[in-house]
Amino acid sequence: MRHPHCQCDNAPMNTHASHDSIRAVQWHGDRLRLLDQRRLPAEEVWFDSTSAEHVTTAIRDLAVRGAPAIGIAAAWGVVLAARAGQDLPAALATLRAARPTAVNLMWALDRMNRRIAEGADTDALTREAQAIQDEDLAANRHMGELGAALIEPGSHVLTHCNTGSLATAGYGTALGVIRAGVASGHIEQVYAGETRPWQQGARLTMWELVRDGIPARLIADSAASHLLKDGKVKWVIVGADRIAANGDTANKIGTYQLAIAARHHGVKFMVVAPSTTVDMATAHGDDIEIELRDAAELLSMSGTRTVIEGADAWNPVFDVTPAALIDAIVTERGVILKPDETQMRTLFP
Amino acid sequence: MRHPHCQCDNAPMNTHASHDSIRAVQWHGDRLRLLDQRRLPAEEVWFDSTSAEHVTTAIRDLAVRGAPAIGIAAAWGVVLAARAGQDLPAALATLRAARPTAVNLMWALDRMNRRIAEGADTDALTREAQAIQDEDLAANRHMGELGAALIEPGSHVLTHCNTGSLATAGYGTALGVIRAGVASGHIEQVYAGETRPWQQGARLTMWELVRDGIPARLIADSAASHLLKDGKVKWVIVGADRIAANGDTANKIGTYQLAIAARHHGVKFMVVAPSTTVDMATAHGDDIEIELRDAAELLSMSGTRTVIEGADAWNPVFDVTPAALIDAIVTERGVILKPDETQMRTLFP
Repeated sequence: MRHPHCQCDNAPMNTHASHDSIRAVQWHGDRLRLLDQRRLPAEEVWFDSTSAEHVTTAIRDLAVRGAPAIGIAAAWGVVLAARAGQDLPAALATLRAARPTAVNLMWALDRMNRRIAEGADTDALTREAQAIQDEDLAANRHMGELGAALIEPGSHVLTHCNTGSLATAGYGTALGVIRAGVASGHIEQVYAGETRPWQQGARLTMWELVRDGIPARLIADSAASHLLKDGKVKWVIVGADRIAANGDTANKIGTYQLAIAARHHGVKFMVVAPSTTVDMATAHGDDIEIELRDAAELLSMSGTRTVIEGADAWNPVFDVTPAALIDAIVTERGVILKPDETQMRTLFP
Repeated sequence: MRHPHCQCDNAPMNTHASHDSIRAVQWHGDRLRLLDQRRLPAEEVWFDSTSAEHVTTAIRDLAVRGAPAIGIAAAWGVVLAARAGQDLPAALATLRAARPTAVNLMWALDRMNRRIAEGADTDALTREAQAIQDEDLAANRHMGELGAALIEPGSHVLTHCNTGSLATAGYGTALGVIRAGVASGHIEQVYAGETRPWQQGARLTMWELVRDGIPARLIADSAASHLLKDGKVKWVIVGADRIAANGDTANKIGTYQLAIAARHHGVKFMVVAPSTTVDMATAHGDDIEIELRDAAELLSMSGTRTVIEGADAWNPVFDVTPAALIDAIVTERGVILKPDETQMRTLFP
């Protein structure tokens, strides 16, 4: 099946050697190949984007999602615009407006824009986008080690949404810590929340975990507190879409509720995100714009209406977890325990 | 479409005068007519049960659900067994095993069994089942008034699962308080959680609220804390499947998480249930058996597999909210504030 706006194919990816190294965002010399994450796990459909507009659509419509992956895709969108001889400020503005919450999008576009301002040519912009992608993968590997070291051997952990290879350049943020923790024996069992309404946990995280052979169980998002009550889960581990200067963290809706539940049960709460997700220009979480998406996302399932006609819904897709509920923020620059503005400044001066 | 085990029809119900008086469990002289709640809101399909076995299947397979409605349906199941000249102890045992958590099922069967032990004939058993049903409706109306009186005028409230006409003899428990509160102006806006995995909030509560013209918005279960943060929601109002002697309350999975979130935000938490839901023989919530249902309920949606093959899931469908997180338990006998065993004994000596 073809993507409405793109050159598509559903050939299997041929560039990954093992499951955990799947790459959902791939540059192929003159086009960006993306795995359509809306179709997983039923189908692995790949499509090629050859313009910044296509990339914008793919980000806005959630074919590519996950804060780091969005930033990387946007950087490649700028390269596509440069290759097509398009007006670059206009292309940057279009890409920037695709989604409001993830700061990685803004960060990647700002970085590309600095190269443009320096007079970089298409080849230089291509190298910059590749560097953004490579650095993200390296950051994930490093965060995996740092985060796993915080976890007591034999622990159970709970995660939310998808923060794995699909959401990043590869390996993952929170899921990178989980991969590293499972490999080192620190993590024995993983639970993943479904993550309504888009079911990223059910569709994507379980897809990654089962492919990697990691012991994993899916739960309803609202079963988390009942799970935490028995004491086996030692850490809740999540990613981030934006981290403010005081450590307040915007992430997928439900993260805040998990942080409250974790604190209530004495379970520790870890945020894993590359430094590109940290936004020291935003003082507090209250200043972060929270994306409200269409009520229709809650009123239907798989295209079938499941709620009575005439019903209304409120569909915020992110929330903010205050720093006071976070035990550790893991970045590739290091770990911040009990984050607050002072602690944050030690790594992000 | 016909129910696999029952005489079915999908004729519209003809015995209710207004929307809020819908009766999902109806005795028709020689058969029990049930609304198949699994098919709502897409279709209103009614089917007739003419044996205790049919009623057992309907309860086990969730065609009829909601603790009070389960008890009422089971009482009529005993009447059907008596009319058929069946072995009544065997019929009682079959019905009793249909679902483990809701104490109303056990209570209704015990009440019918006492009449059987007294030598009641089929007519007397019919009158007893009708009394159980009538008393539940009257209790709901009274609880509606008692609960609504606790709520400050103009409040927003959040509810979970379905506790309305569909879950009871009519009107509802938590939804009865909401109906009464909206009618009296105490409640201005209702939020309903989806209630994964069966979506009783999305499918059933929104169906009842929209039909009644009550201002209502659906939310993802995991959006509750983000909603409570802004301070407009003053009460979380839920039903119960079993209330222990110390006030600990078993209810739909996610209730406990909402109680933790409510306490964190200074939002009050109300449990509404008839005295038939109170089980003074169970000392603590830890003694309540929590039903684990098939992992498949989380792995598929509307019959379509949504999670990778080979994935596992953990699917507890109830949890226990400790009394310490409950501000008020509303029963038809009165309101218990700050419940504990001493407070409970004042109404349930």
